[in-house]
Amino acid sequence: MRIRFLTLLLSFCVFSGAFAQSENFTIRDVEIGIRRELAASNLINLQWRGKTPNFTYQENSNVYQLSVNKKDSAKLIDISELNRILNADNAPSLQSMPYITWGSDNEFYFYNAGNFYVIDIAGKKLVATIKLPENASNMALFFAKKQIAYTVENNLFVTGFDNKTIQITSDANKDIVNGESVSRNEFGINEGIFWSPQGNYIAFYRKDNSKVGNYPLVDIRAREAALENIKYPMAGMASEHISLGVFDLNTQKTVFIEKNDTISEKYLTNISWGPDERNIYIQVLNRAQNHMIMNKYAIQDRSLVKTLFEEKNEKYVEPQSKLIFLKKNPGWFLYQSRRDGFNHAYVYDTEGKLIKQLTSGPWEILNVLAVDNNDNVYYTSTEESPIEENGYKINVATLKKTRLTGDAGVHNVIISGDFKHYLDAFSNTQVPRTIKLMFENGKLNRELLNSPNKLATFNMPEITIGNIKSADGSTDLYYRLIKPADFDPSKKYPAIIYVYGGPHTQLIQNRWLGGARLWDYMMAQKGYVMLTVDNRGSSNRGLAFENVIHRQCGVSEMQDQMEGVKLLKSLGYVDMQRVGVHGWSYGGFMTTSLMTTYPGVFKVGVAGGPVIDWKYYEVMYGERYMDTPQENPEGYASTSLVSKAKNLKGKLLIIHGAIDPTVVWQNSLSFINECIKNQVPVDYFVYPRTEHNVQGLDRMHLMTKITSYFDDYL
Amino acid sequence: MRIRFLTLLLSFCVFSGAFAQSENFTIRDVEIGIRRELAASNLINLQWRGKTPNFTYQENSNVYQLSVNKKDSAKLIDISELNRILNADNAPSLQSMPYITWGSDNEFYFYNAGNFYVIDIAGKKLVATIKLPENASNMALFFAKKQIAYTVENNLFVTGFDNKTIQITSDANKDIVNGESVSRNEFGINEGIFWSPQGNYIAFYRKDNSKVGNYPLVDIRAREAALENIKYPMAGMASEHISLGVFDLNTQKTVFIEKNDTISEKYLTNISWGPDERNIYIQVLNRAQNHMIMNKYAIQDRSLVKTLFEEKNEKYVEPQSKLIFLKKNPGWFLYQSRRDGFNHAYVYDTEGKLIKQLTSGPWEILNVLAVDNNDNVYYTSTEESPIEENGYKINVATLKKTRLTGDAGVHNVIISGDFKHYLDAFSNTQVPRTIKLMFENGKLNRELLNSPNKLATFNMPEITIGNIKSADGSTDLYYRLIKPADFDPSKKYPAIIYVYGGPHTQLIQNRWLGGARLWDYMMAQKGYVMLTVDNRGSSNRGLAFENVIHRQCGVSEMQDQMEGVKLLKSLGYVDMQRVGVHGWSYGGFMTTSLMTTYPGVFKVGVAGGPVIDWKYYEVMYGERYMDTPQENPEGYASTSLVSKAKNLKGKLLIIHGAIDPTVVWQNSLSFINECIKNQVPVDYFVYPRTEHNVQGLDRMHLMTKITSYFDDYL
Repeated sequence: MRIRFLTLLLSFCVFSGAFAQSENFTIRDVEIGIRRELAASNLINLQWRGKTPNFTYQENSNVYQLSVNKKDSAKLIDISELNRILNADNAPSLQSMPYITWGSDNEFYFYNAGNFYVIDIAGKKLVATIKLPENASNMALFFAKKQIAYTVENNLFVTGFDNKTIQITSDANKDIVNGESVSRNEFGINEGIFWSPQGNYIAFYRKDNSKVGNYPLVDIRAREAALENIKYPMAGMASEHISLGVFDLNTQKTVFIEKNDTISEKYLTNISWGPDERNIYIQVLNRAQNHMIMNKYAIQDRSLVKTLFEEKNEKYVEPQSKLIFLKKNPGWFLYQSRRDGFNHAYVYDTEGKLIKQLTSGPWEILNVLAVDNNDNVYYTSTEESPIEENGYKINVATLKKTRLTGDAGVHNVIISGDFKHYLDAFSNTQVPRTIKLMFENGKLNRELLNSPNKLATFNMPEITIGNIKSADGSTDLYYRLIKPADFDPSKKYPAIIYVYGGPHTQLIQNRWLGGARLWDYMMAQKGYVMLTVDNRGSSNRGLAFENVIHRQCGVSEMQDQMEGVKLLKSLGYVDMQRVGVHGWSYGGFMTTSLMTTYPGVFKVGVAGGPVIDWKYYEVMYGERYMDTPQENPEGYASTSLVSKAKNLKGKLLIIHGAIDPTVVWQNSLSFINECIKNQVPVDYFVYPRTEHNVQGLDRMHLMTKITSYFDDYL
Repeated sequence: MRIRFLTLLLSFCVFSGAFAQSENFTIRDVEIGIRRELAASNLINLQWRGKTPNFTYQENSNVYQLSVNKKDSAKLIDISELNRILNADNAPSLQSMPYITWGSDNEFYFYNAGNFYVIDIAGKKLVATIKLPENASNMALFFAKKQIAYTVENNLFVTGFDNKTIQITSDANKDIVNGESVSRNEFGINEGIFWSPQGNYIAFYRKDNSKVGNYPLVDIRAREAALENIKYPMAGMASEHISLGVFDLNTQKTVFIEKNDTISEKYLTNISWGPDERNIYIQVLNRAQNHMIMNKYAIQDRSLVKTLFEEKNEKYVEPQSKLIFLKKNPGWFLYQSRRDGFNHAYVYDTEGKLIKQLTSGPWEILNVLAVDNNDNVYYTSTEESPIEENGYKINVATLKKTRLTGDAGVHNVIISGDFKHYLDAFSNTQVPRTIKLMFENGKLNRELLNSPNKLATFNMPEITIGNIKSADGSTDLYYRLIKPADFDPSKKYPAIIYVYGGPHTQLIQNRWLGGARLWDYMMAQKGYVMLTVDNRGSSNRGLAFENVIHRQCGVSEMQDQMEGVKLLKSLGYVDMQRVGVHGWSYGGFMTTSLMTTYPGVFKVGVAGGPVIDWKYYEVMYGERYMDTPQENPEGYASTSLVSKAKNLKGKLLIIHGAIDPTVVWQNSLSFINECIKNQVPVDYFVYPRTEHNVQGLDRMHLMTKITSYFDDYL
């Protein structure tokens, strides 16, 4: 099936940029400008107003409303009027318009400075104010009842419309953490508080960190540098223990549904409430991550009602999505799985019976957007192309599928509350951004926005997206090539490969700039050939493509990147003595792996926040891909860059954030230490107050440094 | 007086190196070779055999003996024979000959693998073996009784010839440390155990660290990086509290002579026993370090007998030397002080009466070597020249002074046990090393060694030592200039200033290589002009020269270094667009200070282990020179390089050891953080397992990095 899919991709497509102009990008353009004056035009915070045929967006201090019927936009409210409403109820003024969210047709809400506000736009009045403690985090709103659950330090609280607060947990031991996301946000987990559909219960994670090792971080800003330990469970070591509590707002009692005992260290993933609040569903995954059981529990007596079904895989299973219950058939739910090789939706009943596979084919569902009252499921997928995202709806009963979006590219679709319209925002390499209002039947109502090309005055290099074969010949890989500006085929150019290479990431898409950072274009303006290859192991290409990395992170990925090097050679205009490589995080691991595994190929590398030895990485991600060091000693040994440091040739700059809680500092420092032991020259830089990703103005400093390093040595 | 002294130095002296040859140094030559095959020949572990007219040295596995009478050396013992002696007493064999020390005419001793051995060379037998615990440290031997005091963790023990052990202290609290050096080895303190002259008492420091802040160091070699706190009292913060215990070996009881209470935080320096064991003398210094009181205590009732005298100075007083009791007049002792502007010896009686000033003049005593039975005091000083060290003896009664050493240069003098001979080892810029045996009257007995120039086959650059005026015109400064090898006056050369600049250090001496590291010569072979200037603030030039830095570290020092820049300009052959600067520790502070205070002057700098803000430095050294941050806020502010980071121009590489317990890592990381905030490019490197000084093979890696940085950017 995969082979049929790939034949679709053999065509080679060239998108050429705007006509060459004289202006080149600066580092400020690349890091700041692209998010401001150089960004494609947009309708900010675009959303439907409840179930009405109206939708709103924000610009400066105004909220504008548009309608499916009227062409002109009208100002709905501005900061002055909002402040009048707030002041009328003795609430303090705001400096600027906050981002609002519609909770119902006439009510929107926002958080500001620890307060939650609900405004009735019809009555132009403040409907509710809830004051939260200053150090409240993880706010979870149940709008219909205007109640907010949240955490303060390690405990869970809920505060209502009446500003009465209930403390749900009271753990004095800081190693017990309630209401926060668990398992380091793997398995689709991004939150720790789960309101039941009618708001009678709050389910929440309870994490016991007491067995997890401390990783020491140091705050150099203190008068005398201060220790700040974080809990960091390393692969193969003791991990956190998760349980799920359910708080009953009527009885004000908490029961624990699933306790995670010391031995099994299970993952409780994708917590889903049944619509009638009588059941809760947990995708329970073993620590080895190769066996998921879909459990249904009764709230009343916290009993396991049934294991609905199971999934196993020799490598790993990776539950990523909550259940979505249908409307017309509320006893049915959608479940997503890659069990046939690609991420598709399946319809099950609440007894665990498979009703049907909803979608299939050599492509993947990316996002389920909505389900309407006729059980039409709205979603986006890669069906047109692995590097595009299109919207569809499919009817559960008839399996009739309708494509919602037309132009080739990446679409972001927002379905209206009444399902009669949708908003379609898209871009491709030619189109910075277009936003269209569409009828439910897929016909255009009208175009709302068509951004000009804000980069048109710059000397834009030519970008090509194409295919090469993977190193094992099994599949095609996408690459993105940016030629030097003012390209002269008679010249020889240096080249830089920008790499990530790890799972859950795809660098090349048919979107504005081809998914590349503007930095790549700046470097091409300076005369570098910029290449990126999405190797096997990257996302949106199906299970087999991605899980080839299992127990051997980096191995297949590097082989595919070396096909990229062959591509550079085949171009004829690349000086193969001047090839560089650069990446961050997994891409830092790849950069360092490539330079030590293929010494002599790369003249210069810049590796940021690199994993150096997977045994220094955390349990959840690390063990999924590498198993434990005990189970896979040869895999850990052969992928460790500590032992490969002695092979390094060429100039390598390693960069790391000193307080990186994701790839801990120990990684890069271990590599440096080994280089020193082996008299291997290597360069280093540290961002003392930076976590895993360098952001904001610090990032300008970073990109200046990386640019200089290539300019100086490549 | 200072002015007269300086007129002596106005002459300008040039020492030219060996004839130019073809070979250039490698980094290995510079770091390893110079301590092995390129080192000047030597007589290793040269020492007198007790009071006999014989002396010994070691070579390979042999100990050789020479005599004042016989010209030929004879093998005294080799490793085979030593092992026969050891084995005969069931002691294990040694792999190689240990360094031996003569405890008496016929007995030498050595430590090996936790054991202390005494060998009778006449009887060829093992006289004593004392087994020490594996983790014993700070061993202090009382040879006559063959007893060893030592510490295990934070407690003090003594073990005798009979292998019976007495535990002297039993502090369970690890913040209480007994028997170790205190005050971070400032004030001439290098030990924590003080045997009384007849071995009836052991005085020892007791340090209470409980109020001292923890500085967090991280060991990245652990499975999960591990915290290793050190106690690091920062300037102006709570410091350690010191008291002095005296253990009576007869009664086996400890009394505390001087308790250091919480408020005063006194320094107890230069612990000296009276010859009759009835008194102990402590030079007690206040925390502000501007008032020393010379206290005499009675052992019997631990009472303060008398404050013998006091010293005060507006800037600081700096007790550095123990009392030395005379032989003919055992009620008199030598005391060293810079009270007249230079370090000289004074004779006091034990009631505190000043008998006489023993030496005076615009020069400094460097080391008091011995006192004979006629109260002749043997010492070395800078009397001939501030950049030379010569031996003298002076009679206390007559003040008759005799110079013991002849050739211009730096002499190391070893007086014989019977005072009838001395050994004189010396070098200067022309002479790698010569060792002579001398009669007490200063006449030559014979030359023992005259090292060949092991560098003769290399392409040696020309070295010049000369004078320039200090920036304030008050004094002359010494400089050392190394011209590029194969110098061509019609060319323009880049230059590197190597700087230390801080107190207690002098970089330029009339010794082999002029005191320069061989690296300087290697760089000169590569075509760099290498300059070093001993600015005001450096040592061996007297009090006023050195204490100009008080409350303003770096200010005068930099002004003088800029005179070095003027010198470079005056040479005519330096490309002033290509001037670099490099230093470590105080020199790293100076390098970073120079680049941020005089932006644009230096194109490239390399700063190692730099102090960046004196408030991050420790109490003892920091407050001596800078007072506390509370007392001198403007001085701390104006010398802080955090606020100057934004001024940096040119390429600066900062290097630091991650576990530096002297200049803690917070220093350089704070500077980097400030550069990032200000978008200032800067380079960095870290040695993850290195303390303050990079040593051994790691140092080859370091010097390769520093060399490359100058080669790449200067």
